[in-house]
Amino acid sequence: MFAVTILGNNSAIPAYDRHPSAQIVTINDQLLLIDCGEGTQMQLSRYKIKRGKLNHIFISHLHGDHYFGLIGLLSSMALLNREQPLHLFAPAGLEEIIALQLKVASTTLPYELIFHPLDKAGLILDTAKFSVETFQTQHRIPCWGFLVREKKLPKKVDKDKAVAHHIPSAFYPSLKMGYDYTSKDGTVVYNDEVTTDNSPARSYAYCADTIYDENLADIAKNVTMIYHEATYLNGMEDRAAARFHSTTAQAATIALKANAGGLLLGHFSSKFEELHDYLKEAIDVFPNTQLAIEGVTFRI
Amino acid sequence: MFAVTILGNNSAIPAYDRHPSAQIVTINDQLLLIDCGEGTQMQLSRYKIKRGKLNHIFISHLHGDHYFGLIGLLSSMALLNREQPLHLFAPAGLEEIIALQLKVASTTLPYELIFHPLDKAGLILDTAKFSVETFQTQHRIPCWGFLVREKKLPKKVDKDKAVAHHIPSAFYPSLKMGYDYTSKDGTVVYNDEVTTDNSPARSYAYCADTIYDENLADIAKNVTMIYHEATYLNGMEDRAAARFHSTTAQAATIALKANAGGLLLGHFSSKFEELHDYLKEAIDVFPNTQLAIEGVTFRI
Repeated sequence: MFAVTILGNNSAIPAYDRHPSAQIVTINDQLLLIDCGEGTQMQLSRYKIKRGKLNHIFISHLHGDHYFGLIGLLSSMALLNREQPLHLFAPAGLEEIIALQLKVASTTLPYELIFHPLDKAGLILDTAKFSVETFQTQHRIPCWGFLVREKKLPKKVDKDKAVAHHIPSAFYPSLKMGYDYTSKDGTVVYNDEVTTDNSPARSYAYCADTIYDENLADIAKNVTMIYHEATYLNGMEDRAAARFHSTTAQAATIALKANAGGLLLGHFSSKFEELHDYLKEAIDVFPNTQLAIEGVTFRI
Repeated sequence: MFAVTILGNNSAIPAYDRHPSAQIVTINDQLLLIDCGEGTQMQLSRYKIKRGKLNHIFISHLHGDHYFGLIGLLSSMALLNREQPLHLFAPAGLEEIIALQLKVASTTLPYELIFHPLDKAGLILDTAKFSVETFQTQHRIPCWGFLVREKKLPKKVDKDKAVAHHIPSAFYPSLKMGYDYTSKDGTVVYNDEVTTDNSPARSYAYCADTIYDENLADIAKNVTMIYHEATYLNGMEDRAAARFHSTTAQAATIALKANAGGLLLGHFSSKFEELHDYLKEAIDVFPNTQLAIEGVTFRI
């Protein structure tokens, strides 16, 4: 399972029952929360997402529509007596804000909150099954994107062929990892003779808030899915640039140049109640575009 | 118009689509926001309450379920280019938190935020038509209640009688204020002969979060309506006391001792999906009790 569930898709001001930025990436049995606008904890309840499986939170930048819901979520986890540690990856300034909010409430968290300040591009999380890298985007204040990569999946053993070559099943794990088999009498069976490749490892790039920046296409090269903001519609390039945001065609162009498998479009302006123009404009440039609709889970 | 509209009625953890504490007191054409839990700005939109008429915000204490929605509301007002000043009455610690959150976002509010730290009981706002006093409640951290009083309404002039006494209409304003009329020839018409009293001035006491404290009954003596928290049901007195909260019967007893006109019950525990037991238990002690249901406007 590798998927993203949208909890909030609106920019700055909540409107039309659209919420500020937040999304859950599910990878195997882990949930990663990326951004946490106001109301995220209510959205988690609404879509029946289990907080207990959430051990990593990533905050792209310190504009309120990307983090004002975090302290409420952390507080509720405390009230629910969470004990397992929680990793928070965010710009450094957030640590002091959280500390101050806990202090005025005379609250001590019953779990360990491990703060990882984002300060340079690179690998920030590495587990057996996936990794997360961060990269900087161009926004009014320091802003970070996240690239979640599934680890390369093991090969599949063709059991009929393995049996025909008299390979004991105890060797299947090493075959899955790509090793050749050598029998007691020294006969070598090459790995490719008895295995097939599994589906390639998938990847998801969350490009946060950003002005149009072709570097992002390099960073997200060949990802399975890219999330790119499209605060504004085409024709509003000046406004987008002035506010360090992007338009639909700009987002779609990045997806195209990245050779992404799919594009997820979000961070819609409160100016627009209807979203179909966002979709229409983007698919003209990059056909495999979907709108980041709240409550929807997109398989990566 | 003197009324209170409930935006949030739940304690600590949002549940069952119930939101953390927030309510709007409407008095004449002014809106007062009392407490501002997470999601308050969405609740204002949901119930179509005009933010432009909101010039005074009161925060009882710095537990998150009473203020985590404030920074989002302040930020949205900024994005909507609010220009008129906004008065914020809250415990002192909140000022630094807001300043820090604006700093990390490189944001300057386009309106003046006038911070009034709550540090002693007494009058904190006095206008031509109403006043607000604050008082301390007994909670785990410093906590403040608010008493909103309508100013005494002017008397009504009985026009038939005033005309019969040959009183020029230019004197009606002074009659409304209780003055006698003296004609050019020195004849005195006593005020009571030509006026009647208007309805008495109404009042609303918001008792915030509190342990059972009979002092509150003195503070809220004879109010038209008292809001008192009832986090827990009867039989949970120990838990209530340990957490500095109250039960239904305790809340109702305060209303009874205060000789309040009505009781509004709120701050319900997330333990209970259904609220009817709260009402049933309270009306056994104080019949004129209502549950603070979200979206409902109660006339005071």
